[in-house]
Amino acid sequence: MTEKIFRVNMTDLTTSVEAVPAAWAGHGGRGLTSTIVAAEVEPTCHPLGPKNKLVFAPGLLSGTIAANSGRLSVGGKSPLTGTIKESNAGGTSAQFLARCGCKALIIEGQPKGDVWYSLAVTPQGVTISQEKELIGKGNFAVAETLANRLPGKLGLITIGSAGEMRMASANISVKDPDGGLRSHGRGGLGAVMGSKKVKFISIDPQDGKVEIADTEKFKEANRAFAKALVDHPVSKALGQYGTNVLVNIINESGGLPTKNFTLGQFDGHEKISGETMHDTINLRGGKVKHNCHPGCVIQCSQIYNDASGKKLTSGFEYESIWAMGADCCVDNLDQIAEADRLMDDIGIDTIETSVAMGVAMEAGVLPFGDGAGILRILQEDIAKGTPLGRIIGNGAGSVGRAFGVTRVPVVKNQAIPAYDPRSIKGMGITYATSTQGADHTMGYTIATNILGVGGSVNPLVKEGQVELSRNLQIATAAIDSTGMCLFIAFAALDDATCLPALIDLINARFGIALTGDDVVNLGKYILKTERAFNTAAGFTNVDDRLPEFFYTEPVPPHNVVFDFSGEEIDTFWNF
Amino acid sequence: MTEKIFRVNMTDLTTSVEAVPAAWAGHGGRGLTSTIVAAEVEPTCHPLGPKNKLVFAPGLLSGTIAANSGRLSVGGKSPLTGTIKESNAGGTSAQFLARCGCKALIIEGQPKGDVWYSLAVTPQGVTISQEKELIGKGNFAVAETLANRLPGKLGLITIGSAGEMRMASANISVKDPDGGLRSHGRGGLGAVMGSKKVKFISIDPQDGKVEIADTEKFKEANRAFAKALVDHPVSKALGQYGTNVLVNIINESGGLPTKNFTLGQFDGHEKISGETMHDTINLRGGKVKHNCHPGCVIQCSQIYNDASGKKLTSGFEYESIWAMGADCCVDNLDQIAEADRLMDDIGIDTIETSVAMGVAMEAGVLPFGDGAGILRILQEDIAKGTPLGRIIGNGAGSVGRAFGVTRVPVVKNQAIPAYDPRSIKGMGITYATSTQGADHTMGYTIATNILGVGGSVNPLVKEGQVELSRNLQIATAAIDSTGMCLFIAFAALDDATCLPALIDLINARFGIALTGDDVVNLGKYILKTERAFNTAAGFTNVDDRLPEFFYTEPVPPHNVVFDFSGEEIDTFWNF
Repeated sequence: MTEKIFRVNMTDLTTSVEAVPAAWAGHGGRGLTSTIVAAEVEPTCHPLGPKNKLVFAPGLLSGTIAANSGRLSVGGKSPLTGTIKESNAGGTSAQFLARCGCKALIIEGQPKGDVWYSLAVTPQGVTISQEKELIGKGNFAVAETLANRLPGKLGLITIGSAGEMRMASANISVKDPDGGLRSHGRGGLGAVMGSKKVKFISIDPQDGKVEIADTEKFKEANRAFAKALVDHPVSKALGQYGTNVLVNIINESGGLPTKNFTLGQFDGHEKISGETMHDTINLRGGKVKHNCHPGCVIQCSQIYNDASGKKLTSGFEYESIWAMGADCCVDNLDQIAEADRLMDDIGIDTIETSVAMGVAMEAGVLPFGDGAGILRILQEDIAKGTPLGRIIGNGAGSVGRAFGVTRVPVVKNQAIPAYDPRSIKGMGITYATSTQGADHTMGYTIATNILGVGGSVNPLVKEGQVELSRNLQIATAAIDSTGMCLFIAFAALDDATCLPALIDLINARFGIALTGDDVVNLGKYILKTERAFNTAAGFTNVDDRLPEFFYTEPVPPHNVVFDFSGEEIDTFWNF
Repeated sequence: MTEKIFRVNMTDLTTSVEAVPAAWAGHGGRGLTSTIVAAEVEPTCHPLGPKNKLVFAPGLLSGTIAANSGRLSVGGKSPLTGTIKESNAGGTSAQFLARCGCKALIIEGQPKGDVWYSLAVTPQGVTISQEKELIGKGNFAVAETLANRLPGKLGLITIGSAGEMRMASANISVKDPDGGLRSHGRGGLGAVMGSKKVKFISIDPQDGKVEIADTEKFKEANRAFAKALVDHPVSKALGQYGTNVLVNIINESGGLPTKNFTLGQFDGHEKISGETMHDTINLRGGKVKHNCHPGCVIQCSQIYNDASGKKLTSGFEYESIWAMGADCCVDNLDQIAEADRLMDDIGIDTIETSVAMGVAMEAGVLPFGDGAGILRILQEDIAKGTPLGRIIGNGAGSVGRAFGVTRVPVVKNQAIPAYDPRSIKGMGITYATSTQGADHTMGYTIATNILGVGGSVNPLVKEGQVELSRNLQIATAAIDSTGMCLFIAFAALDDATCLPALIDLINARFGIALTGDDVVNLGKYILKTERAFNTAAGFTNVDDRLPEFFYTEPVPPHNVVFDFSGEEIDTFWNF
């Protein structure tokens, strides 16, 4: 298939299939969404108005047999942060879009009135249909209904009620190979999809296939690449315990933010740990290993059943478990799993929403530890859009402003996840400098600060953190362009065969000759393009700071503050 | 009395009386609050945290017999806008503080825990007392209780429940000569006072008096000054109809923002006009003329009674009446007066709150025109701090974010008042460039755009608006430093004797020899000091813009948009 740009104008309900501009040809995934948003979106526009655009792009390797290449990027201007935003997720949609020959799907404009639509993508282009039946429905009902309504194994991209209500934490969900859901969680792009009145997008690749320039070389590179992935000890741990292997590790480090970031360790950590989860899954007949997209060789996902053996949730991640667990002091894994399922159904970011609950607990809206209260607010308030539901559904910053709370863990209005920036200082640099608000995936220094991957940098000292975060943020931007899951980074950092194999894959796919330097330069270009958008939107280096309390309130057990000056943080951008 | 700085530290509950630093000596009112905030407050601090400061300063002429010199400035970092903020009001407190020898009262720090306090200011300094009885009470109850509890005629500065709850629209109220209330309305400094756990401040000047360097010259200048004020036709109109004389005038101009800024004229304008108000007041035995502070010769305030002849409200301003009237489509003056009284009691900005109601109406929270619904929300939600009350009590921007509305008339998150920037373009420049968010009092181009005061600039064309707004913003910053009411500006613009008399007053007060150029330079210094604070807080020229819809939605009846480019707006700062 020749790659094309698929464009949908929701103002006049027209669609087109366009040739790929030369400047976009070398890009995929995040590199492409950010390039398109920077080129076509006015940085000062209202994120929920007609001038914003929502851009989906499979990675450079998506749709091929390359291991772990099934990530889909979505970009736009974030209603949560006001910055440029890219969020990526697994599922089947990236592979199906790529097989449609869709290099990027751009949704622009905005219809007037209250009519809702769905989009159907095939190799021939996009068709727009009115949608009535599924409006107001949760993501699981959408997936279930469409499994019956639309024949064949289709990709599905959908928003829940949070996206319809344009909540700033609304996510975008994609179907996984088993009909479960994965989430483009952060930054509220579900609200942008809702503002364009698109409830869901189905993707039918028909017999479309991605062309490979050098099939043999591609297969060979993939073998080496997959071997590097499966051989790495972190990959093995992720397969066994999921990302939730981190609860005990981060608690031990003193960097597990607890009780709305007032403590660094959680008394109830054992009850919500990856080890406990693993045993519970086995006991109840769930699945410890599960892939979120075809071709994943790490399989960090899982199927978590309730006590009766019925599936409760999958893709049950450490950061989600931490947020409702340690941060809200809920030590009941079943309640957390139930909340995870509800948030997936409502279509709202588990990190942002749970951190918002923690701030609401500090404000006295409900007591710390009240898991049942969280479940009630999710069902009765957020899903229904009551005023309290709106406050919490718009994120942690929204809760802080509503109730006049000053201990609000956000950067650029996006909630800080799972790793205390005072006791794991590399993460503090990532949170402060990320072009997209606080986001652990932007430069995951946990690898080197805690896990000893790619060397070792003491998390408690300032030295080396800026450089570590910078190198990882550059590498991550490049990886996010390939369609690869970020978890290839562990092997890439430690195994000398991994990164060359990845570059070989790209070269064999397109018949080009990228070098390692080219990949680094791609990462730098992406970060600078994103930052230029933010600068034009009104952001300055003053926005690259943590909230005041991280500088003034020492966190136990190490009793340390975040002690980087503004000038020190700003050296991040010296590249 | 030698002027001193009175300082209160709410962290350790200590107070001090300090000599006035040389750099502050020539300043008063806004010039002094902004100078102190710029010198002592970290621009990036959390507005509701211990690093913010709340600074009260009488004007240079406050406490003297100079006509109209009773305005009190209060400054700090605004929780609504994040910018530096100065808000001034009449009442008796400026004069009483000046007579205490208090050049500025600085409240800093923040107590831990939930204990509340009051401050008592005398010429000897400030004492701090715990307060229990009045916590949770409205401003009228505070004023009434203190009239009994504290003997003598004291000044009173207080916050209502909105300030206690740290709502971003909370105002600070001051007692007028009759025990009524005036408001430091804009920018939420009541929340800062609440964050410092200060419920009220009483001021007892005892036998303190302000020293005049040249009494005879002072009296002579005051005669000329007062004559210029009372002779001006706008002063006369303000005395007869109050500021609400503007409803019919602005409606006629097509610049009366109606139905959340979708129209420029309001069908019900006659029912809420100054003329109707004037006749209603007379019919019910109220007072058409009323002074908000001793020495006012314009007397634009009034006593508005209900149908039974009982006082409903005073200081019933055009902008408040417009906001709940035209902007929310409520054509019932009694409902608006009742809401005005409720907002004064709750201690919340009438402009911000009513514009927020208009946005809530657009979101479907209540129908346009539902005056009873507004009264219900004020009493049942805002006063009680329910989630809906928090959303609306945090201002128009908060409502827009909560409900995903894009037509939100705010600049720097502060609601645009009473004059549509598309059809009265000078106001658009003021709203965009003001250092404090949208605020008509910062550079009131209505004088020249509509009233023909100080010349005439066609409100519908671009030419001349930037210069007009610039000159008025510079002059206003200087006037706001004197303690003078802004309504002296009409005489100052048209009557050649007025401004020299004002300068003579200042010179005679201090025994100095200011020139007209000095006054202009003072105004420029204040604007640049305020802007430098904002820049350090992270604001850029991108923040000096109006919301997107003003550029894209033409407003009837002239069907015009706001058509200044960013570059054109930015020329405002060429001085």
